[in-house]
Amino acid sequence: MDIKKVIDEHFEDTLRMRRHLHMYPELSFQEENTKQYIYDELKDLGLEIRRDVGGNGLVTRLQVNDDYPTIAFRADFDALPIKEETDVPFKSKNPGVMHACGHDAHTAMLITLQKILVENKDKLPVNVVAIHQHAEELLPGGAKSMIEDGALDGVDYFFGTHISSLAPVNQIGWNYSTMYANADSFTITVNGHGGHGAEPENAKDPIVASASLISQIQTVVSRSISPLESAVVSLTAFNSGVAFNVIPNKAEIKGTVRTYEQDIRELAFERIKDICEGIEKSFGVQIDLDIQWGYPSLKNDIEMTDYVVDLASNDKSFVENVVEISPSMGGEDAAYYLQKVPGCYFSTGVGNVEEGIDIPHHNPLFNIDESGMKSALEVFLKIALNFDQVKK
Amino acid sequence: MDIKKVIDEHFEDTLRMRRHLHMYPELSFQEENTKQYIYDELKDLGLEIRRDVGGNGLVTRLQVNDDYPTIAFRADFDALPIKEETDVPFKSKNPGVMHACGHDAHTAMLITLQKILVENKDKLPVNVVAIHQHAEELLPGGAKSMIEDGALDGVDYFFGTHISSLAPVNQIGWNYSTMYANADSFTITVNGHGGHGAEPENAKDPIVASASLISQIQTVVSRSISPLESAVVSLTAFNSGVAFNVIPNKAEIKGTVRTYEQDIRELAFERIKDICEGIEKSFGVQIDLDIQWGYPSLKNDIEMTDYVVDLASNDKSFVENVVEISPSMGGEDAAYYLQKVPGCYFSTGVGNVEEGIDIPHHNPLFNIDESGMKSALEVFLKIALNFDQVKK
Amino acid sequence: MDIKKVIDEHFEDTLRMRRHLHMYPELSFQEENTKQYIYDELKDLGLEIRRDVGGNGLVTRLQVNDDYPTIAFRADFDALPIKEETDVPFKSKNPGVMHACGHDAHTAMLITLQKILVENKDKLPVNVVAIHQHAEELLPGGAKSMIEDGALDGVDYFFGTHISSLAPVNQIGWNYSTMYANADSFTITVNGHGGHGAEPENAKDPIVASASLISQIQTVVSRSISPLESAVVSLTAFNSGVAFNVIPNKAEIKGTVRTYEQDIRELAFERIKDICEGIEKSFGVQIDLDIQWGYPSLKNDIEMTDYVVDLASNDKSFVENVVEISPSMGGEDAAYYLQKVPGCYFSTGVGNVEEGIDIPHHNPLFNIDESGMKSALEVFLKIALNFDQVKK
Amino acid sequence: MDIKKVIDEHFEDTLRMRRHLHMYPELSFQEENTKQYIYDELKDLGLEIRRDVGGNGLVTRLQVNDDYPTIAFRADFDALPIKEETDVPFKSKNPGVMHACGHDAHTAMLITLQKILVENKDKLPVNVVAIHQHAEELLPGGAKSMIEDGALDGVDYFFGTHISSLAPVNQIGWNYSTMYANADSFTITVNGHGGHGAEPENAKDPIVASASLISQIQTVVSRSISPLESAVVSLTAFNSGVAFNVIPNKAEIKGTVRTYEQDIRELAFERIKDICEGIEKSFGVQIDLDIQWGYPSLKNDIEMTDYVVDLASNDKSFVENVVEISPSMGGEDAAYYLQKVPGCYFSTGVGNVEEGIDIPHHNPLFNIDESGMKSALEVFLKIALNFDQVKK
Repeated sequence: MDIKKVIDEHFEDTLRMRRHLHMYPELSFQEENTKQYIYDELKDLGLEIRRDVGGNGLVTRLQVNDDYPTIAFRADFDALPIKEETDVPFKSKNPGVMHACGHDAHTAMLITLQKILVENKDKLPVNVVAIHQHAEELLPGGAKSMIEDGALDGVDYFFGTHISSLAPVNQIGWNYSTMYANADSFTITVNGHGGHGAEPENAKDPIVASASLISQIQTVVSRSISPLESAVVSLTAFNSGVAFNVIPNKAEIKGTVRTYEQDIRELAFERIKDICEGIEKSFGVQIDLDIQWGYPSLKNDIEMTDYVVDLASNDKSFVENVVEISPSMGGEDAAYYLQKVPGCYFSTGVGNVEEGIDIPHHNPLFNIDESGMKSALEVFLKIALNFDQVKK
Repeated sequence: MDIKKVIDEHFEDTLRMRRHLHMYPELSFQEENTKQYIYDELKDLGLEIRRDVGGNGLVTRLQVNDDYPTIAFRADFDALPIKEETDVPFKSKNPGVMHACGHDAHTAMLITLQKILVENKDKLPVNVVAIHQHAEELLPGGAKSMIEDGALDGVDYFFGTHISSLAPVNQIGWNYSTMYANADSFTITVNGHGGHGAEPENAKDPIVASASLISQIQTVVSRSISPLESAVVSLTAFNSGVAFNVIPNKAEIKGTVRTYEQDIRELAFERIKDICEGIEKSFGVQIDLDIQWGYPSLKNDIEMTDYVVDLASNDKSFVENVVEISPSMGGEDAAYYLQKVPGCYFSTGVGNVEEGIDIPHHNPLFNIDESGMKSALEVFLKIALNFDQVKK
Repeated sequence: MDIKKVIDEHFEDTLRMRRHLHMYPELSFQEENTKQYIYDELKDLGLEIRRDVGGNGLVTRLQVNDDYPTIAFRADFDALPIKEETDVPFKSKNPGVMHACGHDAHTAMLITLQKILVENKDKLPVNVVAIHQHAEELLPGGAKSMIEDGALDGVDYFFGTHISSLAPVNQIGWNYSTMYANADSFTITVNGHGGHGAEPENAKDPIVASASLISQIQTVVSRSISPLESAVVSLTAFNSGVAFNVIPNKAEIKGTVRTYEQDIRELAFERIKDICEGIEKSFGVQIDLDIQWGYPSLKNDIEMTDYVVDLASNDKSFVENVVEISPSMGGEDAAYYLQKVPGCYFSTGVGNVEEGIDIPHHNPLFNIDESGMKSALEVFLKIALNFDQVKK
Repeated sequence: MDIKKVIDEHFEDTLRMRRHLHMYPELSFQEENTKQYIYDELKDLGLEIRRDVGGNGLVTRLQVNDDYPTIAFRADFDALPIKEETDVPFKSKNPGVMHACGHDAHTAMLITLQKILVENKDKLPVNVVAIHQHAEELLPGGAKSMIEDGALDGVDYFFGTHISSLAPVNQIGWNYSTMYANADSFTITVNGHGGHGAEPENAKDPIVASASLISQIQTVVSRSISPLESAVVSLTAFNSGVAFNVIPNKAEIKGTVRTYEQDIRELAFERIKDICEGIEKSFGVQIDLDIQWGYPSLKNDIEMTDYVVDLASNDKSFVENVVEISPSMGGEDAAYYLQKVPGCYFSTGVGNVEEGIDIPHHNPLFNIDESGMKSALEVFLKIALNFDQVKK
């Protein structure tokens, strides 16, 4: 199969879909029109289709041979509460909602992949599941409920990609172990006892207690975590009091913890919990620690990563560079699939500095070089077509 | 003169005025109707009257004899932005404004005093100035501008009182030196550089810098000020950031410094300034320190205080107890008058625990036992009538 | 009685005794020769004498009339482990021991007083007890055990003085309430877990935990104690570790707490205890807090102080000034006597700036203007001779 | 050449030398007998020998062919100020000095290598330099001065190994980039102003200032360094004050900084410097920061590491495992050679848990499984014998 030719032939259709999705973005867990749009594109392909999987998700199966292994490709399709500020012709028509992370491209690529694979079903040495996932941007995410609702049933391997506007087009990025961090958040409420600013002895000052808490939390990273491990604890909001002469009753502190390893993640929160209890005792305040567990870290399988890297590096059509990249400190709920089955989640460059396409994700001016989608399609196709090379 | 009888005879009139003022409170610097009301009560007494002194103030003079010394009595007449929640029959009719500090009583007492003194002019060994001051509750206060506009011209001594709902009726409180503190406020803005919560190395975290600043500020009182001096530094508000994963650009901290002595006041702010500069250097942030200088500490004259205490303690009509009280950490702009001429500012109890009258000032349920006004009137009258006893 | 003449007549004898004692100083609880010396001076005066009271103490009684009240005078007689560096002719002959606090003068004055009172027994309206106390400089002090051994039995009032090289000769200093602070010490041992400096994650760093503890302890004074009360918490020693690359196992912190009031004293140690427990929890260390309770604060009786101040201020022989002084943050075990009976402990100036006599106590160059002892003797004699004026 | 046979034949001689060196350890820069011993072993081999290179160093050259490239092998030969507590028959005879880091083995292996290479000179496709380096354990180390004195003149590549008692015998450890950290130390002296513990207002408390400094230094790692980089800042000693009631004049703090990258190293010290200046300003103290720069981080060349790993992994004689290891946070002055020429410094296991040989280096009970030296010799020999495979 001439991968280059096939992708080029389908590319106008890919652009059409991506741009339509871009114009009509929908927020996480509210993707009513998007899920219908995807269904409409797929309904005549002859695939087994399950709708409303674990919420707004949709799963198809292209069954080639019951003796073949089954691989899954996944794309997410929700958008963000951001007001688009670009001037692309297919700018968002839904006020205050924008595909500012590229899930429109993910979805268009996956539908295109499905179409090509259906056309070339006879060449496939695998069965292929496509997972169109809702709600990646908002906890608890769609992946978990889709898996619980059977999205991975009968699936042996998992693949996916995230486009990146900060990496150049035609570049594939990979990492052997961790691609995304454990991304957890927390709220600490320090309940003291307010009073007149001139009579601190009658109050339990929550601001001074919080200052000590913040200083102590610096020691989580500086003292309790090996310098060879990666971890961040950031306190990102601190709000307490309004007046000049009134000691407030309480302070609210927000923060995030990013780690790669589960034991480091637990260690960080153990220390934070201990520090909260220590500050309670030291200052006679009462503290609530509310942890919002985020997505777990995303771990690639080494063998599958080697498989993908080899395919991407050889007989290149659109891909030009294949580079090892640093793990991201962000989170991604594709991690849940890779906790269940081995696979590889890689990065696909869609940036183009020369054309001014280098705005970070989640930005009102986010934009992509659409030609970058070809590289991802190339790798996806190779993964499916060559899967008989994988030693089981 | 039978002080008891005279006060009793005038008391119904005093209550009438106090209750009228209570029903129609006006905010600081906006006391249009109040100043007119006072004028109307005084205009037919034959006093020299100056209106709109330094703003909404009003000053009268009862000139008895050019060879006599002149003493001034002062009352303030502004109210507070508080919505009254009591159920007194003369509850505030001005929405959201309340005489919750007792300035209505101060004013009613001073007018009554003026009326009695006019009636007994022939018995007076002094000339008497009455200062009806606007805007005590709001910086920069009315005292300063009234003095600049001549309120103390030709005045040799100054007297005044503040009622207190936390002290029992018929009690007079005094202190030899300081009655009210220097009450200054400040705002510290810590300008860092925001960023992603997972990339602290690209930010200048204003929250962590502020936490260190708050801890260091504790050492102003704990290390730099003698344990034999009084000082408070309270940080009463801290606001920075809203999101879980965004390090904010800046933090805003508010606070108050209360001291009695000028050198301690300066020392406290010097240390705060040094600490701001130190934190700037330590954390690479930029800090603005904005000081709102409050009223200076109110210092009584020892001789005049002895004079008042003696008068209050002997030949009692309404006064029952005369007690030395602790200096207040609050502020009072009567301090400005006492910076110019010697005098005594004392406290008059209007609380009555048995009748449930013990709510602190500046509270929506603030109330007074009106009979307490008689004690203040008694002391005021004695001050005026006996002033020939004062050795000059 | 001509007080001036009597004191002058006895002054050579007073100097002889003071200088002898100065030459042969003895450490607290080891005053073998000193106690014998005192006994030898007193044994022939016809007093009732009890030796070895509560240790090395000695108590005499001059019983005048069983119907009279009994007053006690106290002097302490131990010296300090300091090597004298003055060049007075009667310099210490005991190596490394020095009367650097003036207890030699206290003792010489008290013996002189006893001699004069015996000579004038017929003029006395009181019975007089003299308490020669050992071991004031070293915890637990001699006062407590002397009281337990009966030193105050049958005593109604207590008097004493401490000389001060920082106050001018012929000056008497007094204070209505507190003359000396509660002076307590403590040791905090922070037990962590050492390790290689490059592997903090395997250690429990006691230095970082201690730094947080020290910062938190600043809030005892800055937040928990009213600005109208006096308190100091100083951390005066911090020792931990020696090498550049080894995290030590533990840190030892020493400190002192000075307060005037018992409730403030307890509050300060409660907060310190809470902070120790809070730091234990926050950092996973184990902390020992060892409190060395010092002498309680010394509280004068107001009536007795008025009595002393009046005597000192009128009909002066040697006294020139009588001044109210600030409470001292130091400690003095005469406090124990004043916990049992009312009385007054005052300060006697022995400094003389013009003659270079202004070195602080506990200094190797400490010296006194011996003529200052006359003022103390004057006040002591007046106290005894005029005690019939005291209303009981 | 039969590597296994040759090494076995020479092994008795290797043991003899290693044990002799172990019995007569000498401290860094004092290796008089050791340098003579090495010379005596080498002097009859026909090598070019330079003695006293850059101090006590010794360099030999085995010149095979002027057209060949030249590779250097290096061993260090100084010992530590530790009192040996093992009971090996060849226990240290020099009191308080011990080969507790394995430099005796390094040296014995290098001499053996030299002997074998001389015997097999005709098979060598390279010229070989041997660097016997003094003083690795003590700053500034011997490497720097030996290089300045020409030790690397005419050398194209550099190789070396460090034995490790914590890795099993027959294991070779490698790392592509950093093997050892930048290992720097520092002393911070906080000069305050002492005073009485009860009068903090007259002192500049160095302990409280230091506590704030220590807390701020935690933010170097927690805030200023990317979580993807490795860095440690440990404060390992803090000493200030002795008494309970005297605020000391100054505090001395020691610490270490370990980093891999030069920019991170500089960043860490910049922040420490800024913090010192910030604390100076905040607390009115004066701070001296004295940095003792340690060895730079040791960086392997990727190509040379691949070469060594391939050789070690194939045709194994003694080597059993070849593993990628984590970078060490310790320091090693072999780093200086690798700053000048490419090469590879690897780790050789000499631990043997089953025989109780697992004591860390620098420990009085440090011991090695001597058979581990064979693996290092095997890799060294292969490096030399196969160097014609290296593409230049």
